[in-house]
Amino acid sequence: MRQTLTETLKTDRSRLRRAHEKGAYDRDSLDAVLDAMPMCHIGYQIDGKPSVLPTLQWREGDHIYWHGSSASRALRAMEGADVCMTITLLDGYVLARSAFHHSVNHRSAMIFGRAEKVTDTDVKKAHLKTMVDMIFPGRWDSLRPMQDQEVKATTVLRMPITEGAAKLRSGPPVDDEDDYALPIWAGVVPVSLQVHAPEPDPANQPGLAMPDHLSRIRIG
Amino acid sequence: MRQTLTETLKTDRSRLRRAHEKGAYDRDSLDAVLDAMPMCHIGYQIDGKPSVLPTLQWREGDHIYWHGSSASRALRAMEGADVCMTITLLDGYVLARSAFHHSVNHRSAMIFGRAEKVTDTDVKKAHLKTMVDMIFPGRWDSLRPMQDQEVKATTVLRMPITEGAAKLRSGPPVDDEDDYALPIWAGVVPVSLQVHAPEPDPANQPGLAMPDHLSRIRIG
Ligand SMILES: Cc1cc2nc3c(=O)[nH]c(=O)nc-3n(C[C@H](O)[C@H](O)[C@H](O)COP(=O)(O)OP(=O)(O)OC[C@H]3O[C@@H](n4cnc5c(N)ncnc54)[C@H](O)[C@@H]3O)c2cc1C
Ligand SMILES: Cc1cc2nc3c(=O)[nH]c(=O)nc-3n(C[C@H](O)[C@H](O)[C@H](O)COP(=O)(O)OP(=O)(O)OC[C@H]3O[C@@H](n4cnc5c(N)ncnc54)[C@H](O)[C@@H]3O)c2cc1C
Ligand code: HEM
Ligand code: HEM
Repeated sequence: MRQTLTETLKTDRSRLRRAHEKGAYDRDSLDAVLDAMPMCHIGYQIDGKPSVLPTLQWREGDHIYWHGSSASRALRAMEGADVCMTITLLDGYVLARSAFHHSVNHRSAMIFGRAEKVTDTDVKKAHLKTMVDMIFPGRWDSLRPMQDQEVKATTVLRMPITEGAAKLRSGPPVDDEDDYALPIWAGVVPVSLQVHAPEPDPANQPGLAMPDHLSRIRIG
Repeated sequence: MRQTLTETLKTDRSRLRRAHEKGAYDRDSLDAVLDAMPMCHIGYQIDGKPSVLPTLQWREGDHIYWHGSSASRALRAMEGADVCMTITLLDGYVLARSAFHHSVNHRSAMIFGRAEKVTDTDVKKAHLKTMVDMIFPGRWDSLRPMQDQEVKATTVLRMPITEGAAKLRSGPPVDDEDDYALPIWAGVVPVSLQVHAPEPDPANQPGLAMPDHLSRIRIG
């Protein structure tokens, strides 16, 4: 299963058709997108028709993981089935001199594969701990311990990172040669996800200090 | 085709299984999500297997639209086929006293339907103009006019908004009754997309002023 970071994720399915120059098929490029953004969209089928679930992913080595209710229709439909996970960061609007050449700056990744369920309870527990500490670094140790029935109620799915692509765009618009002479404002309007100041639960115990680990939350 | 805003988008497929109280099936709730976020993810099939395309959507009345190359494999596969469009806004991380009750605040929407191509050239042109002016209010009139071969190179797809759901979560965590007594910090870390100051293309004509319409760009 182990795949070196230089091995290619390119297949006929995952090869970019348009704008080839924006594609990358190496693990370093793909992992950079996955590790920047826990939010993802997973395509799967319900009664043979497409459905897209917004959920959270985390990467451990050569696999990508996600979780939810053991009773979830979506997770049950994905188990053992082909899925496509897409991760997208919108980095900016690209404003060109013609409507046609408008675009967006972005980092995106698509991974294709078959979802499998993590069946061993201790392994599942370890993955859930890793999820918490990846999205909220340092938080796990501060929490009320996880209970067996919580682990039981939870399904963790994973898929190997073996087929897919990253697509990246940055920088100013690319306009038609003649259009650069026009007095039309062109450029980029950057967009990014911002993490704001934590809002304590009004039900917190009085006098409770804000833990240091909150300042370690990163996204994007 | 005209659907009143109070009519329900609920079907057996689109009915939430878990967390029913977070679901909404009226057009007002759905439209509020669609109109806040042009980025979307569309599920479709390639050779019978799921694929998820990140792209941009805009709503006109009772239809949702998207565009791309007439030669795009994705758009060709979607035409006349069942698709699922998911729109997601991440509004914050929800930090609970137990790992189990962590969550995210969000607004999301899913729409199911069959994609159809806009075939009339004038109608297609009008939709492309609307897209530009919805994402960049006031920009269209400042641009180099759209050319016939650009319109020809472009496919516009649409789908009626008749089946789907919105799902909304906001506010502090919901913890187990007993856990509220624990001295564990809980709360929300808000997250939002920010629009930053425009960065002019270095190739702009010298002395070109920043147009007022740039300040009208909104997202989220
Ligand atoms: C935020 C955002 C908004 C976008 N808006 C639009 C839009 O409005 N119109 C439009 O035409 N395109 C848009 N795109 C680009 C779109 O996702 C496709 O890349 C594009 O349509 C070209 O598809 P294709 O025909 O080359 O590839 P396809 O034939 O669709 O795909 C071939 C393979 O290329 C890879 N691939 C394709 N796209 C991506 C991607 N984005 N990320 C990673 N791998 C990919 C996959 O492995 C895929 O299986 C947007 C992308 C992003 C991230
Ligand atoms: C940013 C984000 C992150 C999330 N992270 C997770 C996670 O890590 N784990 C997890 O279990 N869930 C997560 N969710 C929730 C997830 O999208 C599903 O809502 C959830 O898994 C419950 O699915 P279900 O079994 O009730 O519904 P399903 O049986 O999967 O769906 C039934 C129907 O309900 C509607 N529906 C379901 N989910 C949504 C939605 N999000 N928006 C609009 N309509 C919807 C659709 O019409 C769907 O066909 C996240 C949601 C968002 C927006
Ligand atoms: C980083 C920490 C976590 C985050 C951000 C997170 C996020 C989420 C989100 C957003 C949902 C969807 C809720 C909804 O449908 O409205 C969810 C569901 C769920 N999560 Fe987590 N989760 C985390 C940790 C855990 C852990 C550690 C467990 C198990 C011990 C767990 C078990 C579940 C289960 C069982 C559901 C389904 C709930 C239901 O449908 O009834 N989660 N999670
Ligand atoms: C709001 C304005 C617009 C935005 C933000 C926008 C955004 C995008 C994006 C992000 C892509 C993908 C580019 C890539 O694959 O790297 C794209 C492709 C495309 N757009 Fe647009 N677009 C806009 C307006 C238009 C208009 C008005 C037209 C037609 C006149 C058009 C025609 C096309 C075509 C043909 C492609 C495919 C390009 C290719 O694959 O070769 N776009 N657009």
